[in-house]
Amino acid sequence: MKKILNDPARYVDELLQGMVQAHPQYYRQAGDGRVIARAGTPRPGKVGIVSGGGSGHLPIFTGYVGPGLLDACAVGDVFSSPSADQMAEAIRAAHAGAGVLRLYGNYGGDIMNFDMAGDMVEMDDIRTTSVILADDVASAPSAEAEKRRGVAGMVYAFKIAGAAAEAGLDLDGVTAVAQAAADACRSVGVALSPCVVPLAGRPTFQIGEGDMEIGMGIHGEPGVRRGQLRPADEIADEMLDMLFADRPVERGERVSPLVNSLGATPPEELYILYRRVKARLEDAGATIVMPLVGRYATSMEMAGVSFTLCRLDGDLERYLAAPAECAFWRV
Amino acid sequence: MKKILNDPARYVDELLQGMVQAHPQYYRQAGDGRVIARAGTPRPGKVGIVSGGGSGHLPIFTGYVGPGLLDACAVGDVFSSPSADQMAEAIRAAHAGAGVLRLYGNYGGDIMNFDMAGDMVEMDDIRTTSVILADDVASAPSAEAEKRRGVAGMVYAFKIAGAAAEAGLDLDGVTAVAQAAADACRSVGVALSPCVVPLAGRPTFQIGEGDMEIGMGIHGEPGVRRGQLRPADEIADEMLDMLFADRPVERGERVSPLVNSLGATPPEELYILYRRVKARLEDAGATIVMPLVGRYATSMEMAGVSFTLCRLDGDLERYLAAPAECAFWRV
Repeated sequence: MKKILNDPARYVDELLQGMVQAHPQYYRQAGDGRVIARAGTPRPGKVGIVSGGGSGHLPIFTGYVGPGLLDACAVGDVFSSPSADQMAEAIRAAHAGAGVLRLYGNYGGDIMNFDMAGDMVEMDDIRTTSVILADDVASAPSAEAEKRRGVAGMVYAFKIAGAAAEAGLDLDGVTAVAQAAADACRSVGVALSPCVVPLAGRPTFQIGEGDMEIGMGIHGEPGVRRGQLRPADEIADEMLDMLFADRPVERGERVSPLVNSLGATPPEELYILYRRVKARLEDAGATIVMPLVGRYATSMEMAGVSFTLCRLDGDLERYLAAPAECAFWRV
Repeated sequence: MKKILNDPARYVDELLQGMVQAHPQYYRQAGDGRVIARAGTPRPGKVGIVSGGGSGHLPIFTGYVGPGLLDACAVGDVFSSPSADQMAEAIRAAHAGAGVLRLYGNYGGDIMNFDMAGDMVEMDDIRTTSVILADDVASAPSAEAEKRRGVAGMVYAFKIAGAAAEAGLDLDGVTAVAQAAADACRSVGVALSPCVVPLAGRPTFQIGEGDMEIGMGIHGEPGVRRGQLRPADEIADEMLDMLFADRPVERGERVSPLVNSLGATPPEELYILYRRVKARLEDAGATIVMPLVGRYATSMEMAGVSFTLCRLDGDLERYLAAPAECAFWRV
């Protein structure tokens, strides 16, 4: 877990500079530099969508700024919430006269600051709504679903809400679509190794050389079970069983699965897992639509994977398939 | 360096199955399954382009099969050459009546087998040509440039040759463009950690906790200097100095830089490096065109990066910018 960086205190600012320099067609820095907004000006009358959260999860959050996705994003330090001021600045950058949806993960600091940011921009006459992702089934039982963390399900929410905004829906319409996307997603992860937060300089947690932890959070939050590393098909089965137990897949249901690397785990291993995911979903009678396999939501160099299932009714599927692009993903 | 797999002996077959299942719009398996060809049938009269090599480098080689890129690819075991039979099958899958370019890296086994494959398909009246990438400046001095290994420069050669074939050039024309692209590329890498070959079950090499190795090959071939891990800007400077020493960048030259992760190194760190790469290239008077930052050529979970510079004359730049798509890259 060696890191290539200069000053740990400048890690986030330097990476954002480099990202904007490499992809000026998608990104520009706004405010104090910790806001990434879409290159160019927002289309007048389009509902804006903002997200925000800690750094270290590329492409989440900032990478998904682009046409058909997010309009702006507030960027915190690694695994830390952005400030309310930065979030307010992101909302202003996203506003094109039709209000702004705040779409982000269920973490205490992010909620507190995004709520304050909403109050701040009210004085600028910007109307905002919120949808909060809480898709990680391992982080709380279904009876306490409101306590669940937001993880890779955010990718679907960004994509689907972004398409609804591009299609011209008003703020209430985009918010309803985003909430439907959030409700349609369930995720679970397995961690094989920690990562190093640059300013801390040490791993986020310890795990034995032969072990894995099912249900661990993307910042190293404790999972539901630690045990010996198992073969790929068994790992897939255990994770799918958790997802199915939380919400069974119905025969005939249309589902998009995301097999996501948390960072170091290579695509080769994701494809080995995907075979099993596909077989299990088809056994359950589901129809697979637009499977995603790759690095969509990470924790820097953490090894491990997450699975997300997004259940698609007619509207969600259409929005998921609509054109969108950013430096990390093109549909 | 924990791996998610089932049987190490089935690693490659399972990952290819999963890749084709996840992306049937791009890939199909041919021959014994170790040939990945473009979905659908080749456009009659288009020059075919094949590559091949060991597994474990996704997106290289197989991932780059797609419109505007490769037509077929022969896939060996991890870090091992495919057989001549598999390469011949890939050539047959790519042939649409106008002959086939073999475009691959400078490794002994690949050359021997691709030569035999060329002889084998001659009996099917398929004309073939070869262009061999040898872009890694750290693997031999310029006086022995023919001994250099092929690394991430292949990405440019695939893209540029693929566009020339789509544009309708004949076999000699596509071959000349591919050779020009190969000649235009120079690369150098730095490794921070090894990776584990599934069948071997142990790391490809050993490196100290605080060390890096400049010039190490993507299979762990010895580099030019091992030393303490340095700050990002110093690493960038040392690697760029090696590239500039091998072939200076001229004022006014148009250059595409590729800052590539070898696997585990996250995009955050690539962007920190890109800042420096951009500043140095601009100081040298170069104009940056279509910078690439991401995972384009890897060694599974190896940590480290490589830099490639591709010098673009008018034709090369046009072909580089032409539309192309596969599961890993869209232009």
